[in-house]
Amino acid sequence: MSKKTEVIVGLAQMPTVDDLRQNLDTAAVYVKEAAAKGADIVCLPEMFACPYQNEAFVRYREPAGGTTWQTLSGMAKENHVILVGGSFPEEEDGRIYNTCFVFDKNGAQIARHRKMHLFDIDVKGGQRFKESDTFTAGSDVTVFDTEFGRFGVQICFDIRFPELGRLLSLKGAKGVFIPAAFNMTTGPAHWELNFRARALDNQAFYFGCSPARDVTAGYVAYGHSIAVDPWGTVTDQLEEKAGILLTTADLSRVDSIRAQLPLLSARRTDLYRLEELK
Amino acid sequence: MSKKTEVIVGLAQMPTVDDLRQNLDTAAVYVKEAAAKGADIVCLPEMFACPYQNEAFVRYREPAGGTTWQTLSGMAKENHVILVGGSFPEEEDGRIYNTCFVFDKNGAQIARHRKMHLFDIDVKGGQRFKESDTFTAGSDVTVFDTEFGRFGVQICFDIRFPELGRLLSLKGAKGVFIPAAFNMTTGPAHWELNFRARALDNQAFYFGCSPARDVTAGYVAYGHSIAVDPWGTVTDQLEEKAGILLTTADLSRVDSIRAQLPLLSARRTDLYRLEELK
Repeated sequence: MSKKTEVIVGLAQMPTVDDLRQNLDTAAVYVKEAAAKGADIVCLPEMFACPYQNEAFVRYREPAGGTTWQTLSGMAKENHVILVGGSFPEEEDGRIYNTCFVFDKNGAQIARHRKMHLFDIDVKGGQRFKESDTFTAGSDVTVFDTEFGRFGVQICFDIRFPELGRLLSLKGAKGVFIPAAFNMTTGPAHWELNFRARALDNQAFYFGCSPARDVTAGYVAYGHSIAVDPWGTVTDQLEEKAGILLTTADLSRVDSIRAQLPLLSARRTDLYRLEELK
Repeated sequence: MSKKTEVIVGLAQMPTVDDLRQNLDTAAVYVKEAAAKGADIVCLPEMFACPYQNEAFVRYREPAGGTTWQTLSGMAKENHVILVGGSFPEEEDGRIYNTCFVFDKNGAQIARHRKMHLFDIDVKGGQRFKESDTFTAGSDVTVFDTEFGRFGVQICFDIRFPELGRLLSLKGAKGVFIPAAFNMTTGPAHWELNFRARALDNQAFYFGCSPARDVTAGYVAYGHSIAVDPWGTVTDQLEEKAGILLTTADLSRVDSIRAQLPLLSARRTDLYRLEELK
């Protein structure tokens, strides 16, 4: 029996406030609506449950299995969707990670990605932020399997490193989910370019889910949740306002495009080597 | 004494015909004009001296040191410019390579890049081409040093492989020259995206030089010779017609942008490794 290759993806570009309960309730509404519209996989934004500020990351920290984790698991099960649960500040052994948990349709955790590249930036006249003040970086290249095929997960700044996207493709990911929160400096300059570049280089679907833009927030998210196909074309993109991006991705296009324009197979693995260190 | 970091680059988007002498004469006119306008480094297009067709690659093949090589060397010396000599079909030991020679202001060869990734493509309803029918692929990651700093060289399809761009940066290239000839399928879809992606990921200047478009040719080049800065911004781009793109690149921006948005230094070299195999 052949796999179903068409998957409906919902990206929940939700507003976030400084109130955990309210954020979890908002997420639940978005996931429910995406599921009602037919989504097989729903993705939430980076730091969907708390403000994007270092002091908030500390205040909102929670262990795996805590309130946020349980609520996410419940949303997946209740709506019978695969849920890429954005990210929240995950605490373990006194360390805090920027972590995305993925749940299957029964609410079981099937992946955990801890942001591997922390976001430290200081642009003259633009954005400053230093995630490494608070977070510990993760150390795993993360994929998960579904009835549609294999997917990868990154978080935001991770997308800037071509090595990670390539490793995900070499591990068999045909699509990559990226909860992310670019800002008003990097968003207009690099958001679309980064997603299109990774999708084209790796001939895979790339999905980016941002919080809605709140110009009153300390860190203003760019929004523009996005879906890019394996030809590097933006198939769908939201603007800055809250909303759900619903897009259909036919994963069989990954194979057909790789056959027409052979990139992965044309890598000169006799001349260079990219490898994951274990 | 500090290096001069501002370099004026000229990209010669010249027309090509099925006549070696005429192509060499055209190239000489373009190089002379670019030099007269102040260019320090001039770049010619991929296969500037012959039609972009497999049978022509065989007909026009020449060894290093032959007519085309000597003419390029002479152009560099006569105009006192560094010349990235596009590419021509270079024959050695019965094999043919798609090769770019680089000459210093005295006409001495300072680099040789043989296209490392051959262009084999078969897009449904679009472009078909199989370079590997004729060419042997090169095996070197190529850089050259100038009074302005270190540069890298790739040829056309090479740009699609993030590994090569990354290796050039790790070798210290602050700018990369790419003689190239995208076509009317891949050009509109991927030309600008590829150049912007490599420039942004590696925070380096990228220069692409195409032949002018000739809609009567067997292989129709896209044109659109391009200069991209280390922030991923297109600073200059031609359209399809013949012409010279003249652009000033301040190589000190490479360092300042890498300081503001640390990407190369933020690579997780403890988790993955990219290396050149010797």
